[in-house]
Amino acid sequence: MSGFDLQAWSTQQLLLVEQALEQWVPNDAPADLGPAMRYAVLDGGKRLRPLLVLASFEACVGKTPTAPMSEAAMRAACAIELIHAYSLVHDDMPCMDNDVLRRGKPTVHVKFGEAGALLAGDALQTLAFELLTPSNSEIPSQVQAGLCGLLARGAGHAGMAGGQAIDLASVGDQLTLEQLQHMHRCKTGALLETSVVMGAVAAQANAQATQALLSYGQALGVAFQVVDDILDVTADTSVLGKTAGKDADNDKPTYVSLLGLQGAQQEAQRLAVQAQQALAHSGLTDTQVLQSLANWVLQRKH
Amino acid sequence: MSGFDLQAWSTQQLLLVEQALEQWVPNDAPADLGPAMRYAVLDGGKRLRPLLVLASFEACVGKTPTAPMSEAAMRAACAIELIHAYSLVHDDMPCMDNDVLRRGKPTVHVKFGEAGALLAGDALQTLAFELLTPSNSEIPSQVQAGLCGLLARGAGHAGMAGGQAIDLASVGDQLTLEQLQHMHRCKTGALLETSVVMGAVAAQANAQATQALLSYGQALGVAFQVVDDILDVTADTSVLGKTAGKDADNDKPTYVSLLGLQGAQQEAQRLAVQAQQALAHSGLTDTQVLQSLANWVLQRKH
Repeated sequence: MSGFDLQAWSTQQLLLVEQALEQWVPNDAPADLGPAMRYAVLDGGKRLRPLLVLASFEACVGKTPTAPMSEAAMRAACAIELIHAYSLVHDDMPCMDNDVLRRGKPTVHVKFGEAGALLAGDALQTLAFELLTPSNSEIPSQVQAGLCGLLARGAGHAGMAGGQAIDLASVGDQLTLEQLQHMHRCKTGALLETSVVMGAVAAQANAQATQALLSYGQALGVAFQVVDDILDVTADTSVLGKTAGKDADNDKPTYVSLLGLQGAQQEAQRLAVQAQQALAHSGLTDTQVLQSLANWVLQRKH
Repeated sequence: MSGFDLQAWSTQQLLLVEQALEQWVPNDAPADLGPAMRYAVLDGGKRLRPLLVLASFEACVGKTPTAPMSEAAMRAACAIELIHAYSLVHDDMPCMDNDVLRRGKPTVHVKFGEAGALLAGDALQTLAFELLTPSNSEIPSQVQAGLCGLLARGAGHAGMAGGQAIDLASVGDQLTLEQLQHMHRCKTGALLETSVVMGAVAAQANAQATQALLSYGQALGVAFQVVDDILDVTADTSVLGKTAGKDADNDKPTYVSLLGLQGAQQEAQRLAVQAQQALAHSGLTDTQVLQSLANWVLQRKH
């Protein structure tokens, strides 16, 4: 871990991710659809999910992947970012969180109208599956199908969308810690977890590594949400790039409202340790990027 | 054609489709998500897209498909119906068409609220891709990946979602016939076309048959929309199961507003002939179901 420069690694990877998104998110989609899709995806965000895909891929495949493998990993990285982006577009809409600021910019429905945001979100979700199934590609069919299946399960009714439904139904309710964990495991955790496993599938990793990476992703996913809740009460809107204090204002249950600030901080720490332990059981030797990413999730300020 | 009973064939197939949807659209999704998804999909609709998948599949594979082939066809049939259902849920929302009646029932947002409808639509789209990628299945990976790719392209920015964006941008505009055709080729045609081709892919059909079926699907897709526009001005709300006269009220361009009622009827007839001709060039011998479906599209009353 010591000596490894996560910042440099991320900068290099993100350059490739941004180039790929720039190429793959169409600017020739009809009417305002293309501009709205690109507005929602390009130029913004931490890109944590793509970084997790690529870090996991790198841990599994080493330094000399084949070209089809690398292409699969980059497509997976971009596909999961598109799912994340679509969920934010729909989440921000007036009938959901009614948020007007995202990544320091007006939200998509503010800029393109509600119907435009609805359609852009829909088309971003579809595009994710399009990216994973290129025609005339050397990516093996089983990798393509495997990635589609993982993404659909992570994003769907038993994953992200299910978590959002629980979230929606729980406003104003006092959830138990168990209920809150279940909600976040679906709402945020499922997609982070899926990112890590998609990297392994792109690399055609063995079962032991894949299972360990799943455990790592599960712990990291919940830790991310705990830190999110902490930042919601401790960070400024200007640093966060979205409206701070929003959850408390909406009377939403959070780890902080349930465990207190200090309790939430301890919980994040515990989950980070759990993520590191999972890596130790992976049978993989080159996990420093994943280790550093887990530390970053814990220490991030926005 | 003579002697073939489309009604009996459809009834038999639809029984299987309804059973499959009943099984695959989850009732245990969290909070109201499961009920809203099932409300949107079960018990309603003409199921034209599933019937097209199954008719195309049957034309390609004959009477003795293998079990994995049949499973692939049924999964494709249900997946495309889920995409259709999601698009209706989102289309009906207040920020889009603001419709309160669909298939004779209150629309999803009327019943489950706007946020519930937004999420249900999102999760239905995801579920479509989940259905196409079963784990522990004997469906070949290349069929799974091929079906996902087709569905994503038909539903996405260059297909259905793109058509909806054009539609949205064109309200109050006088489109040319060419622009109108392009809009409908995307908005409605793409998914109908995709249905037919998915049937061929599930059957692992040859290139000649697949290409001919694509042409059939293209012509049928546009014919369907022309008839839809005709019914919007000639049918009662009670027969239609949705609000009639809606397009004219919204000042939307239609084939009828552009060609007149008689001109639109001639156009539908011309497209039906085109669809039949495509079948004649398919090299397939058993196309009577597809022929009958094309006739039905032309003669339907709702």
